[in-house]
Amino acid sequence: MAEDFERLSEIRAEDVADLCLGSVFLATGGGGDPYVNKLLTEAALRTHGPVAMVSPGSLADGAWVLPLGEVGAPTVSLEQLPVGDEPLTALTRYEAATGRTVSHLIPFEVGGANSVLPLVAAAARGLPVVDGDGMGRALPEAQMMTFAIAGVAPTPAVAVDYLGNGVTFDTASVDDYERQVRHLAMAMGGMIFTAEHGMSGAQARDCVVPDTLSFAVALGRLLRSRRGEARALLTELQALFAPSIYGVVRHLYTGKVVDIDRRISGGFDVGEATVAPVQGVGEPLTVAIRNEYLLARSGGRVLASVPDLIIVVDSETCAPINSERLGYGQRVTVIGVGCPPHYRTDAALRVVAPRCFGFDHDYVPLEDLAAG
Amino acid sequence: MAEDFERLSEIRAEDVADLCLGSVFLATGGGGDPYVNKLLTEAALRTHGPVAMVSPGSLADGAWVLPLGEVGAPTVSLEQLPVGDEPLTALTRYEAATGRTVSHLIPFEVGGANSVLPLVAAAARGLPVVDGDGMGRALPEAQMMTFAIAGVAPTPAVAVDYLGNGVTFDTASVDDYERQVRHLAMAMGGMIFTAEHGMSGAQARDCVVPDTLSFAVALGRLLRSRRGEARALLTELQALFAPSIYGVVRHLYTGKVVDIDRRISGGFDVGEATVAPVQGVGEPLTVAIRNEYLLARSGGRVLASVPDLIIVVDSETCAPINSERLGYGQRVTVIGVGCPPHYRTDAALRVVAPRCFGFDHDYVPLEDLAAG
Repeated sequence: MAEDFERLSEIRAEDVADLCLGSVFLATGGGGDPYVNKLLTEAALRTHGPVAMVSPGSLADGAWVLPLGEVGAPTVSLEQLPVGDEPLTALTRYEAATGRTVSHLIPFEVGGANSVLPLVAAAARGLPVVDGDGMGRALPEAQMMTFAIAGVAPTPAVAVDYLGNGVTFDTASVDDYERQVRHLAMAMGGMIFTAEHGMSGAQARDCVVPDTLSFAVALGRLLRSRRGEARALLTELQALFAPSIYGVVRHLYTGKVVDIDRRISGGFDVGEATVAPVQGVGEPLTVAIRNEYLLARSGGRVLASVPDLIIVVDSETCAPINSERLGYGQRVTVIGVGCPPHYRTDAALRVVAPRCFGFDHDYVPLEDLAAG
Repeated sequence: MAEDFERLSEIRAEDVADLCLGSVFLATGGGGDPYVNKLLTEAALRTHGPVAMVSPGSLADGAWVLPLGEVGAPTVSLEQLPVGDEPLTALTRYEAATGRTVSHLIPFEVGGANSVLPLVAAAARGLPVVDGDGMGRALPEAQMMTFAIAGVAPTPAVAVDYLGNGVTFDTASVDDYERQVRHLAMAMGGMIFTAEHGMSGAQARDCVVPDTLSFAVALGRLLRSRRGEARALLTELQALFAPSIYGVVRHLYTGKVVDIDRRISGGFDVGEATVAPVQGVGEPLTVAIRNEYLLARSGGRVLASVPDLIIVVDSETCAPINSERLGYGQRVTVIGVGCPPHYRTDAALRVVAPRCFGFDHDYVPLEDLAAG
């Protein structure tokens, strides 16, 4: 049962659906709906062939690794479709602005649309991607990336919008950069593409959350093969996650969505979902949202909190549900997963603990909390 | 009485106080308080010598004229002081980002701080400034500059903040650019410096509002020489303005400020001031503010509206009062001045008429409105 997942040496068009499905699970509600970007990525890989994938541990010191993805309120991407050339435009503008030649691309986060966007540019340019990402999940802000926590400078960075407009940043502090890019996302239609936190191979070896793209494909494959009652899936999820960087998987709640309060505020999707028993009575579960699912509470107790992963899956199909897709009446199973060890350091918890999101709770690891 | 004002061939340190005083008058409440920038500019001109000033009509086709100034909520500049090198940093970054050599600098607007900021960079680099600006007054948004109305592209543009952070824009539409730069001002401390709307000498000859820096010096000199009852000043103001591009000067109201509602919203100072008779009763005057004084109403009638100029001066000292300095109890005289003809074209009124600021009024030129 504790057999390890396969590390892939390339991503083929046929892998993209599983990569997206697994990524939406790991995105814990955020990261953007991958549907359109899945189609774009499959088309790019069919046109240009598979994209080579390298382990972060094998990166040469002199490599230059560029994280690439979209920033904004995921809800926007449901209505405003990309042209398709934004990732390549961001890469090209980054190279023009910096004079650097990029050797590898990498996602910000293994989350929804952001897992596959670097593949679109990588395929078009024949570049490899790094098997990993900067979060091992999805989180809403730039300073929460392991790249930033490790001290990689956020800029030079470029942002492009759907209209072909471009902005270049030269900003020392990642907090300043996050505020600038967030305000700019609001000014540029609610969703922009950025290339930022470029780093050497030596830096990347140190801070990339490893193997998460391969893991997402394996996870997507498992989810796809188990369309059925979600509780039965738990054992298999536990077997897949236990030997991984994530570790613990825990069932938090099963019920139906009885209330959802969601709005776009400050460039984020913000809100709260309430899940109650399908039949009978019982304490409801509330899940706080800021793009991602961040805090699950029931009966006055915290069942799981950021930086650990909180995942909402459809109880029938086992498909993970992004926060912008969550709706009244859905039958859902809520699952907690331990976060990668990258987020349990003091330096990381200073930017990703529940208090960083305005919650009045200290972080307690999922495995140390009383079970739901 | 209709003697014309002197066109200056240079700006000396001794002219800066008058330039600032005249500019605050023409800024109609906006443009930022010039106090700190006056000191910075005087110091720069004492260190580097006078800045040469050339008439826009004398610009060669191949000149490259760069508008430079600050963007944001003027209130911020009362509390957050600049380092002093921002104008030069903006110029240097503009040249680095574009590869262009700038031959002349020019203010966005003849208004408060923005009149003198280009002089700081011009003095340090030994560049001349153009005697003119892009508004002939102050107005809150980029698309309202005569440069933009004439079709000059807003970008490449650079923005710098007080921390040395820089952002470069490549945006086709001036409306998109204004939205981006405004959001960025909010993200970068409320006030930023930009260099934008760079243009050839041929373009500048076509769209610069001419001679406004010389005019501001002459106006400042007049205001300074007439510390006393403001009504007595009116005749002299009329004599100075009548032969100029502004034309009509009209007394709108004399009273005291009895209410001021002012907040920072969306990167602007927004609010309304109410002026009532000092003694006795009478219809009060309300002045709507969006950085600048935009609409003066009394008894249900519009007395003056943007793009014409509305100026509030201290009834004792004749000193014009910026909107962020306006306070309860001040004895003030409110004056209307016709706008430069640049703003009475259909193309200009599409972006500067009262409806562009959310007022339910068509523009009626000051001289066609019934007198207060």
